Amino acid sequence: MGGINTPIRVIDARGNILCGSHLFTGDYSTGEEYAEALGNAINEMIEKNDLQGKIKGIGMGTPNGNMNEGTIEKAANIPWAKTVVVPIARMVTEKTGLPCRLTNDANAAALGEMIYGAAKGMKDFIVITLGTGVGSGIVSNGQLVVGHDGFAGELGHVTVVRHNGRLCGCGRSGCLETYASATGVARTAREFLDLFPERESELRTISFRPITSKDVFEAAEKGDELAIDIFNFTGKILGTAFCDFIAFSSPQAIILFGGLAQAGNYLLKPILEEIDRHVLSVYKGKTKVILSQLKGAEAALLGASALAWE
Amino acid sequence: MGGINTPIRVIDARGNILCGSHLFTGDYSTGEEYAEALGNAINEMIEKNDLQGKIKGIGMGTPNGNMNEGTIEKAANIPWAKTVVVPIARMVTEKTGLPCRLTNDANAAALGEMIYGAAKGMKDFIVITLGTGVGSGIVSNGQLVVGHDGFAGELGHVTVVRHNGRLCGCGRSGCLETYASATGVARTAREFLDLFPERESELRTISFRPITSKDVFEAAEKGDELAIDIFNFTGKILGTAFCDFIAFSSPQAIILFGGLAQAGNYLLKPILEEIDRHVLSVYKGKTKVILSQLKGAEAALLGASALAWE
Repeated sequence: MGGINTPIRVIDARGNILCGSHLFTGDYSTGEEYAEALGNAINEMIEKNDLQGKIKGIGMGTPNGNMNEGTIEKAANIPWAKTVVVPIARMVTEKTGLPCRLTNDANAAALGEMIYGAAKGMKDFIVITLGTGVGSGIVSNGQLVVGHDGFAGELGHVTVVRHNGRLCGCGRSGCLETYASATGVARTAREFLDLFPERESELRTISFRPITSKDVFEAAEKGDELAIDIFNFTGKILGTAFCDFIAFSSPQAIILFGGLAQAGNYLLKPILEEIDRHVLSVYKGKTKVILSQLKGAEAALLGASALAWE
Repeated sequence: MGGINTPIRVIDARGNILCGSHLFTGDYSTGEEYAEALGNAINEMIEKNDLQGKIKGIGMGTPNGNMNEGTIEKAANIPWAKTVVVPIARMVTEKTGLPCRLTNDANAAALGEMIYGAAKGMKDFIVITLGTGVGSGIVSNGQLVVGHDGFAGELGHVTVVRHNGRLCGCGRSGCLETYASATGVARTAREFLDLFPERESELRTISFRPITSKDVFEAAEKGDELAIDIFNFTGKILGTAFCDFIAFSSPQAIILFGGLAQAGNYLLKPILEEIDRHVLSVYKGKTKVILSQLKGAEAALLGASALAWE
């Protein structure tokens, strides 16, 4: 479930998408209306495709999803859940007669990686989602770490710069997300262009619109050294943060997922160098950092579906 | 198992200590000799107390204990395991015929708190051991977080000061342990006395021996403001680190354990203030910070015994 669209898919145990439909998330003014429409869409899809009795359960990936309670809690980007707690899993079960579980997008991505992707066969790993923000899904001993309140794993909001850090949308400052998200990279680009007026860069030719992380990637691909240094800076901060994550749960792998992960080696190289330089010796050389093997939209859908197998 | 002493106890399911003996850890030159002596001591104790057939298993708390493998790996303070990996659990099983599991001291303390102490009934909590160093035992979803290699939970070595941090015994700098351990508090005391020559403090009267964290506590108890500020500084650093731990696993409680935890409210107050000021809003007011309810030596023994019930 995104702020705009709710794709609905039937997925089999091997991760094949069999059929699908969708809703516009924002077309409804209350959680009840949305749940009613979602239930109807699911029931219609089951009927139209002769799937009665063949669906094991429903898994949902939602913003601010509380896995313990099956609720969406005060999700800023969902019009009918901005200020309230919506027990969406229970409502969908009532409309469809099927068990329903939910979790947030990053946890869904982690389940997707474990069952169908780069973490197949792993019991201890962390997925870091690098998009507009930075999210995380943590798996320890084969289980999602959701915490006592269902909201564990906000690694985009660990503090990486403790003095004069960048202001974060969460109201605090110095959060990982302000440096290592797509918007964080764009912010670094603007800072670097101001900070090093003597350095040439094709990023200086962009005008009439804000620089994006995609611009930085494209410039790096052409050998632009300032652009490469922007990724070096970003990767170093990620690597430093990863050293602390490793000291926490000693994962077999940290998997990078989401738009910014497409920067590939421009990010991986400085991350690995920083981990190698800084990680506590007992962990040295043990944790892999790898890119997701699932396509963006697919991973969230596959991950959400994985909830239904549990 | 400590570097000097190995206390051995028979403990029942309610946490009562029934009988005991001990070994001197350092009296042996190889792991084999130590395991032989330990096996003999256990067998003798069982025979002397008519406990044949009544022992369910053996649990050990050891330095650098790898829970996944049952090994002690390069433990600096164990003379016969300084540079080698000793498969001690298997060796003890061979000598006694009893199943044997081990983990490090902080994890043993976490199990002790869960089964007999302050974390009774909790599924998500973190024990922070504040002694000569800082250790941690993390429980998520009712299970110890041990990681893919058995060495997760080195929270004494997350980096809390990223620039010009204090040098740490691990070879890096800025680790939590360099500020929040008993030795870290003593270090802060020396720094504060140098840094604020104008401030009066009874800590200035200590001479001919190094200041200890106990001195700082005793001065604080007498109302010494510099001593109280030393704990404020320490608690603030712990609180900042705890905000990141909470973002990771959203624990119901963080439990302070070990010698320095006896400073009680001198530490708790600044910790709670810092968490309240700095934690991500979704976690606000949710995580308790409490003192261990187990006596020092007891908790490690009870926790180790808890391994045998699993």
